[in-house]
Amino acid sequence: MKIVAEKIVYKARFFEVKEQEVALPNDKKHVYQSVERRPTVGIFPLTGTHNLYLISQYRVMFGKRILEAIGGHVNKDETSLAAAKRELREEVGMRASQWEEIARIEKSASVIRETFHLFLAYDLEKGKPNPDAGEDIQLVKLPLKEAVARVMSGEINNAATMIGILLLDNLKRNKKL
Amino acid sequence: MKIVAEKIVYKARFFEVKEQEVALPNDKKHVYQSVERRPTVGIFPLTGTHNLYLISQYRVMFGKRILEAIGGHVNKDETSLAAAKRELREEVGMRASQWEEIARIEKSASVIRETFHLFLAYDLEKGKPNPDAGEDIQLVKLPLKEAVARVMSGEINNAATMIGILLLDNLKRNKKL
Repeated sequence: MKIVAEKIVYKARFFEVKEQEVALPNDKKHVYQSVERRPTVGIFPLTGTHNLYLISQYRVMFGKRILEAIGGHVNKDETSLAAAKRELREEVGMRASQWEEIARIEKSASVIRETFHLFLAYDLEKGKPNPDAGEDIQLVKLPLKEAVARVMSGEINNAATMIGILLLDNLKRNKKL
Repeated sequence: MKIVAEKIVYKARFFEVKEQEVALPNDKKHVYQSVERRPTVGIFPLTGTHNLYLISQYRVMFGKRILEAIGGHVNKDETSLAAAKRELREEVGMRASQWEEIARIEKSASVIRETFHLFLAYDLEKGKPNPDAGEDIQLVKLPLKEAVARVMSGEINNAATMIGILLLDNLKRNKKL
């Protein structure tokens, strides 16, 4: 399969829409319509006693508050780690002196490209948050075990948040946390 | 926050792009650009001895073969369960007599709306696959434990596949499988 032509048909702040003409092995052509989103980061701040910080915020898309990981988009000319540090500071006013990238995830494999970097942050220090206008963020502290229970019950159903919690649970059980 | 105007600016086969004008509490207006994708399903066929079936297929987006869960989009006028049964039959020629929806996931919370239904399928019966033109799918059978190891190593990094495997692992450890 070979891409023979490509154009951007819509450009938004956080994503762009592409049409790619692909030559199939049978000599036919096919137009792929896809979305490419700016990379995102999710931050999982963990205390020494395995308490995890999540946030609760109102999401227009669902018309209600959602319990999810701290996170946001990576800016141009910014590394994913720098974005993670910035989001942690802006959204909840926290700093961490130890960071570890525990996963690099592709949210989809066909129509939408969204790379998600997942960071574990520890040695935490609290400060004053500086959220964007319109953001209404509440910090929620809960034991990792309780977070796992909320994933299993379906209460936490945001993909990146689920993955972070389940990975941390696995690392803890295997004494790697 | 209130949506005061909405228009569809691009319509693709599997998604559409929307612009929504939202009135913020401070009386300012903000335009949200978002993508709404058709719902998708992922199927996790599991044998009585906890072997899991995944597929390996070439993905144009990554330029290589990816190990991931069987799945696809839900058609219009089709339930998510009907879509899961159809995809299992078409992609790998398999039927299952027992089905359980183990999660309903939102892949994103802000810019992109993608609902993903995750099904556990058991009591399996093999048959002949009927893939779409251009699909080159290989069925891969592996112990659930091995699948978990590949998630933890980062080899399996597709979000929906990771979540399914980690949820099944949790259910198994809690003797619910």
